[in-house]
Amino acid sequence: MAEKQVDVAILGSGTAGLNATSRVGPSGKSFLLINGGEPGTTCARVGCMPSKALIQVAEDYHRRTHLNRYGVDGHTELTIDIPEAMEHVQDLRDNFVDRVLSNSTDNMGDKFVEAYAKFVDPHTLELDNGDRVVADRIVIATGSRPVVPPAWEAFGDKVLTTDTFFELEDLPNSVAVVGLGVIGLELGQSLSRLEIDVHGFDMAQTIGGTTDPEVSQMALETMQREFPIYLGEAVEISEEGSRLRVTAGEQSVVVDKVLASLGRTANVEGLALENAGIELDERGIPRYNPNTMQCGDSHIFIAGDVNGERPILHEAGDEGKIAGHNAAHDETMAFKRKVPLAINFCDPNICLVGETYQALDPDKTAIGEVKLAPVGRAQIMGQSRGIIRVYGDKASGRIVGAEMITARGENLAHLLNWAISQQLTVGDLIRMPFYHPVIEEALQAALNNLYAQVETKNEGPVKELYPL
Amino acid sequence: MAEKQVDVAILGSGTAGLNATSRVGPSGKSFLLINGGEPGTTCARVGCMPSKALIQVAEDYHRRTHLNRYGVDGHTELTIDIPEAMEHVQDLRDNFVDRVLSNSTDNMGDKFVEAYAKFVDPHTLELDNGDRVVADRIVIATGSRPVVPPAWEAFGDKVLTTDTFFELEDLPNSVAVVGLGVIGLELGQSLSRLEIDVHGFDMAQTIGGTTDPEVSQMALETMQREFPIYLGEAVEISEEGSRLRVTAGEQSVVVDKVLASLGRTANVEGLALENAGIELDERGIPRYNPNTMQCGDSHIFIAGDVNGERPILHEAGDEGKIAGHNAAHDETMAFKRKVPLAINFCDPNICLVGETYQALDPDKTAIGEVKLAPVGRAQIMGQSRGIIRVYGDKASGRIVGAEMITARGENLAHLLNWAISQQLTVGDLIRMPFYHPVIEEALQAALNNLYAQVETKNEGPVKELYPL
Repeated sequence: MAEKQVDVAILGSGTAGLNATSRVGPSGKSFLLINGGEPGTTCARVGCMPSKALIQVAEDYHRRTHLNRYGVDGHTELTIDIPEAMEHVQDLRDNFVDRVLSNSTDNMGDKFVEAYAKFVDPHTLELDNGDRVVADRIVIATGSRPVVPPAWEAFGDKVLTTDTFFELEDLPNSVAVVGLGVIGLELGQSLSRLEIDVHGFDMAQTIGGTTDPEVSQMALETMQREFPIYLGEAVEISEEGSRLRVTAGEQSVVVDKVLASLGRTANVEGLALENAGIELDERGIPRYNPNTMQCGDSHIFIAGDVNGERPILHEAGDEGKIAGHNAAHDETMAFKRKVPLAINFCDPNICLVGETYQALDPDKTAIGEVKLAPVGRAQIMGQSRGIIRVYGDKASGRIVGAEMITARGENLAHLLNWAISQQLTVGDLIRMPFYHPVIEEALQAALNNLYAQVETKNEGPVKELYPL
Repeated sequence: MAEKQVDVAILGSGTAGLNATSRVGPSGKSFLLINGGEPGTTCARVGCMPSKALIQVAEDYHRRTHLNRYGVDGHTELTIDIPEAMEHVQDLRDNFVDRVLSNSTDNMGDKFVEAYAKFVDPHTLELDNGDRVVADRIVIATGSRPVVPPAWEAFGDKVLTTDTFFELEDLPNSVAVVGLGVIGLELGQSLSRLEIDVHGFDMAQTIGGTTDPEVSQMALETMQREFPIYLGEAVEISEEGSRLRVTAGEQSVVVDKVLASLGRTANVEGLALENAGIELDERGIPRYNPNTMQCGDSHIFIAGDVNGERPILHEAGDEGKIAGHNAAHDETMAFKRKVPLAINFCDPNICLVGETYQALDPDKTAIGEVKLAPVGRAQIMGQSRGIIRVYGDKASGRIVGAEMITARGENLAHLLNWAISQQLTVGDLIRMPFYHPVIEEALQAALNNLYAQVETKNEGPVKELYPL
């Protein structure tokens, strides 16, 4: 049993841990990056990247259904070889994972340790290889894993999660997707477009994380055109021969596999956090300050999906940088967090920016709305289903948030997020250029609708133009 | 012969004229909107809209060449029925034109006059129906038309322009596209993707209006993969049987049709501007102030493509509003013009934002660059050819412009344009959220590259995060 003394120990070499390391390394502090389980980030291995690869395949294949609109013959004869498609997804994924590793842990020599760690006391970690690490500061960045109800474990590999889904060499003929958040919608829609028989379930009454009733409604109507969706009932699973019966209230289907997309849970069990001397919340996760990532006033910091707050790559990166900076410096610094941005890459994209509808004060908020149907470019793209709702402060006209389901939502969401980040008003935005014909013109229509409802108007006689 | 007296006469019911009318109408001034030739905007009839419709068809059809990457079988059997595709384009176009008309001139009663007008004296217009209009103020918004060299008129309908192209019921088997600006590249690439034999020509050494040598080079290499391009020589045409021989230096091809995409020229000849009492430039176009749209200090205003300066829909709209406002009010007001934005909707998009490369002071400018090849989302999309070059003021870090050829360029161009419009620095932008995996991350890489070269750095220890 060796014991090693370092300034900073970082637990987890995912996105948050790697970003923390990138701040600790240059500080001159000694450190160890300790990772249990598969190396590579959640994003590259089982998250953003392989899901986007599958979505792209499914979208391209699905596009054939548009081709009859303008005289392309033979599109009904197209077929897809699923094992080949999965191999393509896996090749891309392996490439992304390799790139992460070759830019990070592959070059770290003995500063990278592959082992699971647990707290013995607030400064001492025991590794499952028997070694011990005593660290002045510790960053917990152990990530998360898919939630699977314990009762479902009995069904073995008939219950898929993102951890196992992207390993499949072939796809089942039928899948029940349980949980219609980001993963459920992205994969459910893609599977359906690849001609898998998909049934979607969620206990909630909305899908895709939308909180705005108009956007929820449009999202539901749009997705239901592609596969059946059953909402508002808990799901039960039972075996039926070699298959699974999935029951939710009065609905019942028999499928080959269930995709459990019920969210993710923190990887904290093995850490023995009770020995870390920090306060834990009811889920067993350390309480922390989101601007410093410090746990209480301790020497321990937490970053990334393990805290369950902003399980999104760029936020995990920020948290890693904050935790890493503070772990490497005596003075704990607070940093501003980013304006929220959530993108569901289903087609059309579902996006939430800034404050969600449910967080708004209805008395102080005006809502600008546009449906995509009359937008020229949307018609040309054959993507005229959608709605954009932009929220503004009624008095000042400041943009505070938006929810939308629209083609190119991912791009519009950046535009709006940056505008909110810069504290711009709807009056500022209607003075920006909108080229023609672009999907940004849909946003322009929503903004004009919002502008009419806010009290602070633009200076000058022409609302779209700054007087000189 | 009737004579009518009005406060404001607006010549031309295109985008600029309609926007001018929208400002004159509510002012209470009496007015006439006088239009010679086809009603409907250039954009809807023969410009942005039908070209985007054709591009969409061609892009969708072309996408079949990606399908073999992931096991879609049968894609080599796809064929396109060109007359059906053209009918689709024409249906969409008719719909867009109808919408323009039904929202504007259709409801204007006798305030809309279909006639060509010419100046008799600075306040008097003679219409080709014999009537006269005496106007206190006049807005010239007569638009533009495609340039066709006089010598080519002998070839009749073998020489196409955008005025005739979108009327075709079928497409020729081979086309020489002469002039590779926006229209030439958009239509040339689309025709090539629809399996028309396309040859592209331009007298310049660059295509698509790019001025940055790196972007020009990438644009040329990318487009040349789709159809042959011959640069740097003037084109001559001669008849060869029922076809046309197109010669440029040592290159010579025989084609069914020539698409003349050499730019557009102002519709001023019929206006008898010599009687308007205003100063004309060497092209015969009135000199004017781009912030007031006033011609000299006269009662005449000019707006839209007729002045040849910013022949883009949203700019024509602004000019119409400015001219209309000033024509309807005693005090002439100056307005700020928008940060330039030019989008070529070829695939990948070619975009110019803010200051172009050729306008930069190299001593004061830093350039951030990224090639698309390593960008994850670009790889997933199968769109990894491209380059983004962002220009910043070396001392302050302020973003001043960009040129790019990239997938989703149209969206990135808005993001950058709005940032420039808000006078943001590269340091501000690297603190904005970039979701993962999106094409905006390519921009992020270019911005990080630029940030490293500018002198003004972000406050605080972590460049991506605002300290609190």
